Amino acid sequence: MDFRLAATDGRARAGVLRTPHGELLTPLFAPVGTQATVKAVTPEQLESLGATLLLANTYHLYLRPGDETIARLGGLHQFMGWPRPLLTDSGGYQVFSLADRRQIDADGVTFRSHLDGSSHRLTPERAVAIQENLGADIIMALDECPPPSDRATVETAVARTHAWAERCLKAQRRPDQALFGIVQGGVFADLRQQSASFLAGLDFPGLAIGGLSVGESKEEMYSVLDLLQEHLPADRPRYLMGVGTLEDFVEAVVRGVDLMDCVLPTRMARNHAALTPLGRLNVRKAAYAEDGRPIDADCACYTCQTFSRAYLRHLAGAGEMLAATLLSIHNLAAMMTMARDLRLAILDGRTQAFVAGFRGSFLKHRPLEV
Amino acid sequence: MDFRLAATDGRARAGVLRTPHGELLTPLFAPVGTQATVKAVTPEQLESLGATLLLANTYHLYLRPGDETIARLGGLHQFMGWPRPLLTDSGGYQVFSLADRRQIDADGVTFRSHLDGSSHRLTPERAVAIQENLGADIIMALDECPPPSDRATVETAVARTHAWAERCLKAQRRPDQALFGIVQGGVFADLRQQSASFLAGLDFPGLAIGGLSVGESKEEMYSVLDLLQEHLPADRPRYLMGVGTLEDFVEAVVRGVDLMDCVLPTRMARNHAALTPLGRLNVRKAAYAEDGRPIDADCACYTCQTFSRAYLRHLAGAGEMLAATLLSIHNLAAMMTMARDLRLAILDGRTQAFVAGFRGSFLKHRPLEV
Repeated sequence: MDFRLAATDGRARAGVLRTPHGELLTPLFAPVGTQATVKAVTPEQLESLGATLLLANTYHLYLRPGDETIARLGGLHQFMGWPRPLLTDSGGYQVFSLADRRQIDADGVTFRSHLDGSSHRLTPERAVAIQENLGADIIMALDECPPPSDRATVETAVARTHAWAERCLKAQRRPDQALFGIVQGGVFADLRQQSASFLAGLDFPGLAIGGLSVGESKEEMYSVLDLLQEHLPADRPRYLMGVGTLEDFVEAVVRGVDLMDCVLPTRMARNHAALTPLGRLNVRKAAYAEDGRPIDADCACYTCQTFSRAYLRHLAGAGEMLAATLLSIHNLAAMMTMARDLRLAILDGRTQAFVAGFRGSFLKHRPLEV
Repeated sequence: MDFRLAATDGRARAGVLRTPHGELLTPLFAPVGTQATVKAVTPEQLESLGATLLLANTYHLYLRPGDETIARLGGLHQFMGWPRPLLTDSGGYQVFSLADRRQIDADGVTFRSHLDGSSHRLTPERAVAIQENLGADIIMALDECPPPSDRATVETAVARTHAWAERCLKAQRRPDQALFGIVQGGVFADLRQQSASFLAGLDFPGLAIGGLSVGESKEEMYSVLDLLQEHLPADRPRYLMGVGTLEDFVEAVVRGVDLMDCVLPTRMARNHAALTPLGRLNVRKAAYAEDGRPIDADCACYTCQTFSRAYLRHLAGAGEMLAATLLSIHNLAAMMTMARDLRLAILDGRTQAFVAGFRGSFLKHRPLEV
């Protein structure tokens, strides 16, 4: 993997990340395909709307259909019909969120499957081996993602994350995958700084920011990002994990983040909410019953080019699957468009004006009243 | 509307049907979009797999979102994003299947909505008016579809269907829509013959065969089709309603049918069954867990060109919506391919050999053991 910065504008960065399955232009938003599918959309539709990198979840694929099955079928790219770059997480985040179904120790974590209660063991070495079977272009070190504000827990998690990061690097066998380390430290500036410095000293081609958007306030999240951009090496890509509303994407990019992923755009689509640069629009609203306009007249996506709010409202009300498909296409296109617009603004040196315009018009968390 | 026969081969016919939204090549299979959407697939995907005519259900659209709403939004083509030909049924079939929620009289039928219990009245004139609001290229007369084997009930239904057919013709205002009459008569040869002759004497540009695939045996259905081809005018299109497994499609085409529609290909897809010329394949089978082959190696559809049985099995097992989408694409493509292959065989005068080959290899109702 090779990462090159094409331009910086303030702290915002526009880069090119080369992977075995093609080039990624950053800033970049990666749709999430938890179970080797971005819910309700085909790879063909993802390509059409400009997606370049997808994320898949190791925890889910390890349990079903199994990483060895996927390896025998030619790897994750072939399995899910996605010829472009892929990223897998370590499985840790999902395992830790199993609460009473898992037990962490210094060596790893033992957990019971949410599918059948069967017992499994995840260690740094296993997390790497499973991800080597899956075969994504970017893979993640096993980390511990603690509640962000309990200092003692966060300290333990940081120490464990660092030890596991070193073990993951040692365990890696495949030279064609880029293994990223993950910075932890909750909301504590000194722990974040310590974690960033430690991981920057290891041989990771990219670094991720974990443990955000897990209960802390927006202000806390933004100040961690403000802090980290000074302590993360400028020549390596920075990946903010699991964060990805339209507004958080913008705020992270202006704080030096290159990659992000999130289930929100597609999950919101299945709940009939559409993302627009002016705010969120819930297509179930009665006001749209005879509204012949698209979700967003400025959007070039298939949904906005073809269908009215009235039709989307009808599909949602009638319980039709197509509602989820068309809204997922739109929401992902909105993220892709924002990423592309930010990249162009960075390349042109007009990021500040662009972001000011966005902040001014974006009515956060309010449905669009138009 | 203009219908021209390009070739006949035995009783099988290859024709061209001109509509305001484009030409239809027959034999033709029309996917069903009950609520103004073919479940789980986009219009773009339908165009890619070669669909030309879609059916939508008047009963459903009248109740939700309402035919007047659709008219104000520019009509059904614009509403559902389908620029090619559309056909709507009369609403009668769904109303009659409401059983204890409806009451038929000589003038029409009163029914309660399955959505909210509200009371509604459908008459021949209303059925035409609603379909004129929807604006499909082909619309259907209101008929009564009785249980096929109770002679007294069938006789009453035939008489009513004929009276309603004349009223529908009188009620029609829009000259750009082709109104089809519907032959009834259950499994009774004399009633079928009488119905065909009566309706052929009216000014319908096309005739449909109703009241089949509603409980009678395959042999009974095929012998009604055998009989009718002698009594339906050769110069008008013949539409067999609601019948459309792969095998029934073939057997109807060799008996002189031009158009068919059915929910089965997409409904079976949502139940994880794939149609192939060799029989049905249920992708949930454990045998496919590591089967890297497509559903049908000879199929040119997106699903077969991109995904393995193992992946489809994974999606189905994981409850992913994409399973329904990919299997719907395949099943509809299988119907489109069969229609196109039959048309080419008819044009080349080799229908008999083609159909003999199909019958020989098709293992009806058995999952494919390969």
